[in-house]
Amino acid sequence: MIKDITESVLEEWLDNVRPYAYDGQVANYIPALSRSNPEDLAVAIHYLDGDAVEAGETEVRFTLQSISKVISLALALMDNGESYVFDRVGMEPTGDPFHSIYRLEQVPSKPLNPMINAGALAVTNMIHGDTPDEKVGRLLSFIHDLTDDHSIGYNEEVATSEFESAFLNRSLLFYMKQHQIVTGSVEETLDAYTKQCAIEVNVCQLARIGALLANGGKDIHSGRRIIPKHLARICKTFMVTCGMYDASGSFAIKVGIPAKSGVSGSVLASLNEFGGIAVYGPSLDEKGNSVVGLRLLEILSNRYDLSIF
Amino acid sequence: MIKDITESVLEEWLDNVRPYAYDGQVANYIPALSRSNPEDLAVAIHYLDGDAVEAGETEVRFTLQSISKVISLALALMDNGESYVFDRVGMEPTGDPFHSIYRLEQVPSKPLNPMINAGALAVTNMIHGDTPDEKVGRLLSFIHDLTDDHSIGYNEEVATSEFESAFLNRSLLFYMKQHQIVTGSVEETLDAYTKQCAIEVNVCQLARIGALLANGGKDIHSGRRIIPKHLARICKTFMVTCGMYDASGSFAIKVGIPAKSGVSGSVLASLNEFGGIAVYGPSLDEKGNSVVGLRLLEILSNRYDLSIF
Amino acid sequence: MIKDITESVLEEWLDNVRPYAYDGQVANYIPALSRSNPEDLAVAIHYLDGDAVEAGETEVRFTLQSISKVISLALALMDNGESYVFDRVGMEPTGDPFHSIYRLEQVPSKPLNPMINAGALAVTNMIHGDTPDEKVGRLLSFIHDLTDDHSIGYNEEVATSEFESAFLNRSLLFYMKQHQIVTGSVEETLDAYTKQCAIEVNVCQLARIGALLANGGKDIHSGRRIIPKHLARICKTFMVTCGMYDASGSFAIKVGIPAKSGVSGSVLASLNEFGGIAVYGPSLDEKGNSVVGLRLLEILSNRYDLSIF
Amino acid sequence: MIKDITESVLEEWLDNVRPYAYDGQVANYIPALSRSNPEDLAVAIHYLDGDAVEAGETEVRFTLQSISKVISLALALMDNGESYVFDRVGMEPTGDPFHSIYRLEQVPSKPLNPMINAGALAVTNMIHGDTPDEKVGRLLSFIHDLTDDHSIGYNEEVATSEFESAFLNRSLLFYMKQHQIVTGSVEETLDAYTKQCAIEVNVCQLARIGALLANGGKDIHSGRRIIPKHLARICKTFMVTCGMYDASGSFAIKVGIPAKSGVSGSVLASLNEFGGIAVYGPSLDEKGNSVVGLRLLEILSNRYDLSIF
Repeated sequence: MIKDITESVLEEWLDNVRPYAYDGQVANYIPALSRSNPEDLAVAIHYLDGDAVEAGETEVRFTLQSISKVISLALALMDNGESYVFDRVGMEPTGDPFHSIYRLEQVPSKPLNPMINAGALAVTNMIHGDTPDEKVGRLLSFIHDLTDDHSIGYNEEVATSEFESAFLNRSLLFYMKQHQIVTGSVEETLDAYTKQCAIEVNVCQLARIGALLANGGKDIHSGRRIIPKHLARICKTFMVTCGMYDASGSFAIKVGIPAKSGVSGSVLASLNEFGGIAVYGPSLDEKGNSVVGLRLLEILSNRYDLSIF
Repeated sequence: MIKDITESVLEEWLDNVRPYAYDGQVANYIPALSRSNPEDLAVAIHYLDGDAVEAGETEVRFTLQSISKVISLALALMDNGESYVFDRVGMEPTGDPFHSIYRLEQVPSKPLNPMINAGALAVTNMIHGDTPDEKVGRLLSFIHDLTDDHSIGYNEEVATSEFESAFLNRSLLFYMKQHQIVTGSVEETLDAYTKQCAIEVNVCQLARIGALLANGGKDIHSGRRIIPKHLARICKTFMVTCGMYDASGSFAIKVGIPAKSGVSGSVLASLNEFGGIAVYGPSLDEKGNSVVGLRLLEILSNRYDLSIF
Repeated sequence: MIKDITESVLEEWLDNVRPYAYDGQVANYIPALSRSNPEDLAVAIHYLDGDAVEAGETEVRFTLQSISKVISLALALMDNGESYVFDRVGMEPTGDPFHSIYRLEQVPSKPLNPMINAGALAVTNMIHGDTPDEKVGRLLSFIHDLTDDHSIGYNEEVATSEFESAFLNRSLLFYMKQHQIVTGSVEETLDAYTKQCAIEVNVCQLARIGALLANGGKDIHSGRRIIPKHLARICKTFMVTCGMYDASGSFAIKVGIPAKSGVSGSVLASLNEFGGIAVYGPSLDEKGNSVVGLRLLEILSNRYDLSIF
Repeated sequence: MIKDITESVLEEWLDNVRPYAYDGQVANYIPALSRSNPEDLAVAIHYLDGDAVEAGETEVRFTLQSISKVISLALALMDNGESYVFDRVGMEPTGDPFHSIYRLEQVPSKPLNPMINAGALAVTNMIHGDTPDEKVGRLLSFIHDLTDDHSIGYNEEVATSEFESAFLNRSLLFYMKQHQIVTGSVEETLDAYTKQCAIEVNVCQLARIGALLANGGKDIHSGRRIIPKHLARICKTFMVTCGMYDASGSFAIKVGIPAKSGVSGSVLASLNEFGGIAVYGPSLDEKGNSVVGLRLLEILSNRYDLSIF
């Protein structure tokens, strides 16, 4: 097992990738995200033996955004079982952008996978809970278990801001409601979804989630099983086939580590027999992936030959 | 000018087309429509000289549904001018079904024309009025002017029923709100739109609207101008290129009369130098057009060589 | 009947629209077309009583290009009957560009109409004749009849040049061959099609074809029927719904005269109770329509209130 | 390392999956394939230490069909380098069927990946060689190296039959020729491609190719490097993201082993730290994958926990 990555190595890598932060742009569709500092870079590794190493602005908290799709999928699968979930959301990757709607018009009109927005909205709709707050409460409890950190909550300003401007997600939800893929109130599902996306973590907490997934769903420190192994595997599989928006294929070629990115500029990576990795760098490329996150994971994969392929 | 179509000729035609009523199906997506009697057939012609002839169940009132798109377009054009309207809604026909959304994903993301649902919703959004009731009130006043009949209102049961189940139209509206094609409240626009679709008329009132359009926008009896001539022409043009859903092209070939159909089973036709024609027969073909309406207009066109082409 | 358009009026209009020639670009995908002079403008009107008026560079000969689609459709309908033709090619307009292929992937996989390339290629495939030369020979004979001018032939340089570079049309043909819409040799059909597109006329000859169509298919001078009336009508209907590429809808709104354009910069228009109109001006807008042709027909339609709507 | 799968275990698995052969259908688009016997099942495993185990009708030879896409990709990458190849063919998975063309109409108009037909045709076009026979000769030499078996050739009947009926592939090639993705003669590229698809192997030879890929591109027995390690990895990555047509995503979830299928009913799988696996069973599901192959790999993966995720 590789374990020789020290903080000074991580610091050096951060220095190497820092210039790329200016090749991209911070997400600007809501004020809270647009205020992010493109120079706030951070990285953390959580090894399978419980050791952790970190570098950069590790105290910066950021919202999960699309990374939350992996976690809500795990919970929805635990709540409903595989067949219920995959009757409503497909398993196939797609070359379309995350916000795409036109595929829903094809038969059968279900979202191609749970990592595009339509699929993720349907997944959140399936999480057990009578109210948005109950759903989000259950998701937060789940994340508290995943991280052994009960302080994690969601950023209300971000959640409110996204809720107010989420016209496209409302469009996707109503489309799916028409086709009986989602049930109940669109506004309530969207409320839960925008709060889910606004859950705030730092790289250390995120790397620990990655380590738990790499450990087959068991917490590394307590040995407690949080996610059944086969469901943790499903999450990692989707991270490979559809985790990096419509750059998932090229990321698999160039990096080959299961990873999920979010428009806050964060990336969650999980590698069996290694552990969890989290990177933060809010400058995004045109696909919505963290420029620095991609570079850093590419360096790491190439240096230690970490591709799963 | 042709004027030799008598009531007994119309009755005979109705008898000829009656059997076709069983080739289609009454719209069943809301209870009020599904209760329509497929044998309730009616036809009316309003000549340019003011004479009118009618046959069948002419007292049956039906909701305008998509026929209202022509009328709301006229009002929106009068309210906003051509360039404002056509900056937001295109002029091109499409081979897509009326409910289609995927075209909106193409650049520029505006509805291809005002006769598909997306375009018609955007048109209703443009009608002046601070509230849905004000918009609908103005539209009803406009229809009162068009028909010289102030008794026309909307069917609340149909409006409410359509409003409650209009998930797809909400999806289209939110999609367009995301792309700044519509402004304001989606629910309010939908409220206005479903009331607009639920406006109730009989074939005689509808034929008079057709006659007014054929007369270049002037009321035949009073000579009063209700719609500017160039806007009446625009309406008739869209009736030809996109009036009969994705059967508009074949209808133009087979019949060649400007016409707009609605899923209540009604058809409004307008022919320069002839007058207005309205047909009612609630049994629909798979495109959503009245089976009997199509047959009857085909007979009429062929018998009197009425195609504009 | 309007007949007061003199040569000096036409000259004046040409002067008015001449500056617009520089708003577009001459087709440049083959050398022969790219050598066209954007200042070579010409217009001709052929009235229903046989009189004709013309202005500009009327001796310039140009290739029919897509205008030939109307003529080949008439011949294919006469050769095969309506039901055979429309079993293989649809009647619906489309908002897609003329070269589009993706619609063919939808069910049923037949071209939406005979004015887009896929549909026109299928139509040429249906023209009777054992060899490309026999098909083209029959089409030329037909055009000789339409114009009463046996000198019309095709431009071999243009035909050869288009044949050699027609990869997209080969793609469409093979796609349709896969789906049994076309039969026989793709190369032979393409040979016939590129020769058909390369048939050369001047505006006077073209205006006469327009007059014959306006006259219901009968030659104006001899009274001889060349095209059955209902088939001439079908041609004019397609000219309205799909004659001007994906600007057909806006052309119908703004001009309202049945017309078909070609990328050589020519437009054929046909108006019942008026006659035929032909315009030539090789500078094209981004849709592929003659900039000057559009302007001139718009002036003509507005000045004399010629819209059929 | 797992090595306890004996021939009797394999035989037992074949017996278990045999009934599923009747759930699918043998490919019937060419006579040679339609004559396959759905009961001819075979499986072979080639371990990384060089040992091999096999069961069923292992002497049956079948054509590679789409499995050849992985091998031609390796050769094209060795011939041209990564940047040349991926400038012309993308890296992204797609939810579309293998024969799909409409994506090419999107910008940029290059095939989404090398495993769909369009991408594979472009790859074959890039293989060095002045003639189809030179390309195919080089590909066969490469396969001789991969298998250490110089007897492997292609089935002329299958190649000829596919060549004659490959209208859709011609359509794709001409489309790409129009967009400068492929160069040279379409017929010659198709000739090379259909011969490539018609290369015949048995499961033992195929499993050895899988083992070489699992061994990072080095022959297991001689230690000779045949494919650079990073290119072998690229091949395995595409096998995961797009190897099983539009069922790649669900196969990754359910099985999680890099694999490529062909419509002959064969599957090539390659698993690092394990070896190569080949299955043959000509009965196909509606996606074009071997019913028995999928079942057998699912059993194997679940029994030995082989998913890479």
